[in-house]
Amino acid sequence: MSQGQIVECVPNFSEGRDTEKIERIVAPLKGREQVRLVNYEGGRDYNRLVVTVLGEPRAVKEAILDAIGVATELIDLNHHEGEHLRMGATDVVPLIPIRNMTIEDTVLLSKELAREINERYQIPVFLYEDSAANPGRVNLAHIRRGQFEGMAEKLLLPEWEPDFGERKIHPTAGVTAVGARFPLIAYNIDLGTDDIDIANKIAKSIRQSGGGFQYIKAGGVELKDKGIVQVTMNITDYRKNPIYRVFETVKMEAARYGVPVVGSEVIGLAPLEALTDSLEYYLGLHGFDDTKIIEHWLMGD
Amino acid sequence: MSQGQIVECVPNFSEGRDTEKIERIVAPLKGREQVRLVNYEGGRDYNRLVVTVLGEPRAVKEAILDAIGVATELIDLNHHEGEHLRMGATDVVPLIPIRNMTIEDTVLLSKELAREINERYQIPVFLYEDSAANPGRVNLAHIRRGQFEGMAEKLLLPEWEPDFGERKIHPTAGVTAVGARFPLIAYNIDLGTDDIDIANKIAKSIRQSGGGFQYIKAGGVELKDKGIVQVTMNITDYRKNPIYRVFETVKMEAARYGVPVVGSEVIGLAPLEALTDSLEYYLGLHGFDDTKIIEHWLMGD
Repeated sequence: MSQGQIVECVPNFSEGRDTEKIERIVAPLKGREQVRLVNYEGGRDYNRLVVTVLGEPRAVKEAILDAIGVATELIDLNHHEGEHLRMGATDVVPLIPIRNMTIEDTVLLSKELAREINERYQIPVFLYEDSAANPGRVNLAHIRRGQFEGMAEKLLLPEWEPDFGERKIHPTAGVTAVGARFPLIAYNIDLGTDDIDIANKIAKSIRQSGGGFQYIKAGGVELKDKGIVQVTMNITDYRKNPIYRVFETVKMEAARYGVPVVGSEVIGLAPLEALTDSLEYYLGLHGFDDTKIIEHWLMGD
Repeated sequence: MSQGQIVECVPNFSEGRDTEKIERIVAPLKGREQVRLVNYEGGRDYNRLVVTVLGEPRAVKEAILDAIGVATELIDLNHHEGEHLRMGATDVVPLIPIRNMTIEDTVLLSKELAREINERYQIPVFLYEDSAANPGRVNLAHIRRGQFEGMAEKLLLPEWEPDFGERKIHPTAGVTAVGARFPLIAYNIDLGTDDIDIANKIAKSIRQSGGGFQYIKAGGVELKDKGIVQVTMNITDYRKNPIYRVFETVKMEAARYGVPVVGSEVIGLAPLEALTDSLEYYLGLHGFDDTKIIEHWLMGD
């Protein structure tokens, strides 16, 4: 892989309560050359740890492998309960191209990572999303159905041979899914009403499943303390369905109900490109790119 | 100064033609710890070299001092001609706070730099802009009036004692100005007309000197090959006069003449904050800050 590539990795581990174990799992991700631990957060109800790491692809892969090693030692799925679906101690490992990487580069990296997880820790691995070997494995939900408890039996089904490893779960760490995907943006638009029907109708009009934009998954949600409703969404490809277009479309649809759009918010991280693209739209900016941003020059090579 | 501070420095040297000399002047700015040479460009007509450097304040100061040392050796203002006004081999050294720095921090840094330029190279130094000791020295044009050729005499005037050094020019390197200033944004807005009068009228309505915004300097300009005119401007404080406000005001004024705004462009570098602030306006974004941008996490500490 060429110089200057940056990948994001967001592994999900099945331990959200024991802070000592959490610290031990993330320890291999700290103070490492060319790897930056952005954040990690254990959730009590979900009993799940979500970690965000950025860095040079091979350095990230090695760091993540070490963290998976610790998780494999510390987590026993036979004694795990929580509200979030899970099938493995390391449940899922998404890899996301951030800079100077194509999705194809990221798929290659995901396959290397998956093979090494299996070789080092004898965990069967499924490839999902853009790394999936067939359409039935694209959606993580399909792979995870049956969860840890049903996985031993599931692996024996003809169509569920793992992409790496044998048809036999790891006795305590279960099964892991690894996959490359395009960065998604979690984005919410606030409506100046408390009528959830309106949010639901607008969500339906913009989402793919309702005949709307191809890369939008959306729903309505009530914010009771604020007394308003939101259209909450994932933009799964911001290059094809840019933020401004979704925002302006929601505004247009809301006008139909005499409801104003009163704000919006980005949840979690968004790529700079997705933001500057929308600014280019509003200001009719031409000749603009990242190198015009002072902070661009502060990023490592 | 605390960790994580970033300053920008844009020294202007009076050599824009001799590429060997240019390379020798910028050499001390390359491959240096915590200093990034963003770009440098010599201009033939101006016979002037403009360099952009970013980095940790003290590291930048040391690197710039070394470059000034080389420029002092190589450039003799007694044999310099070019279209740009100049009074020194190192003509002017602006320092701009970029991250985790106040303008006061930057003024302190400018004074250290000015003192050391004088101590090491016996060049008299004037402080200008936010570093100026009195209102008569804020504007660089006032300091530079008379240029190299008139400077020996000017220094003898009661009001023109240098801030550092004696009332005597360096025999070949003249006089240098050092100052802290807020980052400015060079921004142009395209109008869908070839009528320069309209651009001039709009420029006048938005600029400070015409009764408009306090931190806007603007004028009209013809783009003959494109067959349009532009309102060209410097935004000298984007926090007080944000991009979106200027853009929307120009749109509003242009409507008065039945002329559309057809685009805009940022010239050179702009701080990320100035861009995301305008995006926040258009999308009604709340709860947004730099840490929501993936690339934020790729910047060094």
